[in-house]
Amino acid sequence: MFSKIIKNVKNNTPLVHNITNYVTVNDCANVLLACGGSPIMADDVEEVEEIVSISSALVLNIGTLNSRVIESMIKAGKKANELNIPVILDPVGAGASKLRTDTAFRLLNEVKFAVVRGNMSEIKALGNTDAKGARGVDADVADSINEENLTEVIEYIKLLSERMSLVVAVTGAIDIVSDGTKTYIIRNGHPMMGKISGTGCMLSSTIGAYCGANKDNIIDATAAAVCIMGLSGELAYEKMKKNDEGTSMFRSHLIDFMSKIDDEMLKEGAKFETRQ
Amino acid sequence: MFSKIIKNVKNNTPLVHNITNYVTVNDCANVLLACGGSPIMADDVEEVEEIVSISSALVLNIGTLNSRVIESMIKAGKKANELNIPVILDPVGAGASKLRTDTAFRLLNEVKFAVVRGNMSEIKALGNTDAKGARGVDADVADSINEENLTEVIEYIKLLSERMSLVVAVTGAIDIVSDGTKTYIIRNGHPMMGKISGTGCMLSSTIGAYCGANKDNIIDATAAAVCIMGLSGELAYEKMKKNDEGTSMFRSHLIDFMSKIDDEMLKEGAKFETRQ
Amino acid sequence: MFSKIIKNVKNNTPLVHNITNYVTVNDCANVLLACGGSPIMADDVEEVEEIVSISSALVLNIGTLNSRVIESMIKAGKKANELNIPVILDPVGAGASKLRTDTAFRLLNEVKFAVVRGNMSEIKALGNTDAKGARGVDADVADSINEENLTEVIEYIKLLSERMSLVVAVTGAIDIVSDGTKTYIIRNGHPMMGKISGTGCMLSSTIGAYCGANKDNIIDATAAAVCIMGLSGELAYEKMKKNDEGTSMFRSHLIDFMSKIDDEMLKEGAKFETRQ
Repeated sequence: MFSKIIKNVKNNTPLVHNITNYVTVNDCANVLLACGGSPIMADDVEEVEEIVSISSALVLNIGTLNSRVIESMIKAGKKANELNIPVILDPVGAGASKLRTDTAFRLLNEVKFAVVRGNMSEIKALGNTDAKGARGVDADVADSINEENLTEVIEYIKLLSERMSLVVAVTGAIDIVSDGTKTYIIRNGHPMMGKISGTGCMLSSTIGAYCGANKDNIIDATAAAVCIMGLSGELAYEKMKKNDEGTSMFRSHLIDFMSKIDDEMLKEGAKFETRQ
Repeated sequence: MFSKIIKNVKNNTPLVHNITNYVTVNDCANVLLACGGSPIMADDVEEVEEIVSISSALVLNIGTLNSRVIESMIKAGKKANELNIPVILDPVGAGASKLRTDTAFRLLNEVKFAVVRGNMSEIKALGNTDAKGARGVDADVADSINEENLTEVIEYIKLLSERMSLVVAVTGAIDIVSDGTKTYIIRNGHPMMGKISGTGCMLSSTIGAYCGANKDNIIDATAAAVCIMGLSGELAYEKMKKNDEGTSMFRSHLIDFMSKIDDEMLKEGAKFETRQ
Repeated sequence: MFSKIIKNVKNNTPLVHNITNYVTVNDCANVLLACGGSPIMADDVEEVEEIVSISSALVLNIGTLNSRVIESMIKAGKKANELNIPVILDPVGAGASKLRTDTAFRLLNEVKFAVVRGNMSEIKALGNTDAKGARGVDADVADSINEENLTEVIEYIKLLSERMSLVVAVTGAIDIVSDGTKTYIIRNGHPMMGKISGTGCMLSSTIGAYCGANKDNIIDATAAAVCIMGLSGELAYEKMKKNDEGTSMFRSHLIDFMSKIDDEMLKEGAKFETRQ
């Protein structure tokens, strides 16, 4: 299934440069190590070009933006484009403030991204359709993906992906990953993932590792990362429930499974379909 | 007891805007989700007004201050006041440096707070009495609350609360919460809570969620949050000791119990008295 | 063995001022509390002199540098020197960017350090010999310490230590701590420590606590901290493996053992030799 994709991550230990928020940065660092990558965080405008040059991927996450860091993001992104290093955008809270929405658009204009990953509200804010403004960093309920609106959402994501010329990954109750031609519908994951901070950010960093080690197959690499994160959430929930624990132990188990999932477990647990 | 207070939190999922330090920010985000709220962190002066406008409460924590963030705090606080959104101050380390003490006073002058929560040293630094300077972020032993000085401390807190027209919550071996009229003396908690980073900050964010969902009852909402955090600490210590673990697992258990405590557990475990 | 060193930490609860990166800062705070110290983080140029003045040690960690913080580091370091407070440098990623390498050199020129702790790549970047540029924050494989190149590396570290007039601590598969005269070769630790973020940063902060409580014996204090961190890693690995867990639980166990290791456990588990 995703055997080759995973093997490339484990064999290459892709270094992922993250310019990210200070809320979940530690989770991102640990999940990158867990999944087989290696993290480096650097956001000063003086060093981002050098750091991205030794990296396999760049992840830009706008969770706690400030003006100093925006310039670093642009500079790092342009350098990554020059060097053909995949760049991932996590538009945390796009739609919730003008600063975030404008910055997401500025980044999309000035940097060529390989993947954008967000919840439905954030992606719609970028799609600039009828986004009503994201409520914090959680998906607006009216904008969530479910079995009823699935076909409609898939069409929207495909169109957006084509128009933006990148892979769009929308995560929620159902996850959709599309490059406009091939579309994955992924049913892994567990609602408990919304009760801890950082699952979205961790996934974006993991996508960085997967794309960094699979530059010629961004769509499958992204889908594999989404599956593995979702499956880790499911397995973590089972373990948490069995041990009568709460949200903090759920988080530990989730990262644990990110470090333990192999080809065999993924074959058994992955729940997805593809549409052309 | 606190049934209605807790129900309001669970039913409303209050979004809490935190402008806080980078040391414990992840703990704050996770404890907010655990207790039934939702976190958003944003500190750029360009976006704080928009973010606070979609929030139910604002928590200002001065743990790792810098000049850029002070302006954001003032601006967010003023906007919250305009919109009648409760604002909580955690004056981490007030008394330990001129910058922190001055900033706490500036915030108190320019923003109307609903609650101030700190240890005795920090609160005394604000009370501007005989504070000898806080030692880091831990309570100065000479300034701690114990059964011997309890009546004296209660009088001091009541006076301070009246003078400042807000709820004062002092946490230590015994916790005191007062609005000048009604005073809670709370004996939940465990000394192990002082052996992990962030229990104070997490409590302040939790108070944010509780006040955000109970705007018309700030004193009871604050006391409920203090009880629940203290009880989680006690239960976490029992679990840690039983499993022969250390401080890191204690922290996980504490956040776990924050996500698990319900009305029933609180009825059984809360230890407080009130004085008018 | 290290009985007196450890007793001094437990009895004095040294306050350690950290100017450090936002990736692992929470781990540093928690490990300081676990090992018997107390953390304070402050990086604003207006308060660092006051904060360092009430502290027992200062740790400067360049993991996520920016220009604002560099000035704070210099100012805090100079004040610490004035007051005879030991200063520890963690040159995270020195060699990986000009900003990091230049800043490490500037710090070494303007501040007198008691200890520098890094991996072999970082230390070589400072030794300014044939460093080929560190790969992120992990040791360059070509620059790692093993039984084959041990004698050669020891000679290099001794020379460097003498030339810089400070204790050099290099950590890797084998750890070396030297003041140019006395050299510890430490074989505690486990490869799993490289699969979580922050073991290096946590060790540097722990060295801060140990040196702060043992100002007259920096070499033994540093070696004790390295042993204890390594032994915690070994014990954590055993526990993780027994419980069929992953990297996140490994991290929890590691900090747990940092809070539990006592004289007896260290006597049983420490694996080191000294050479004059």
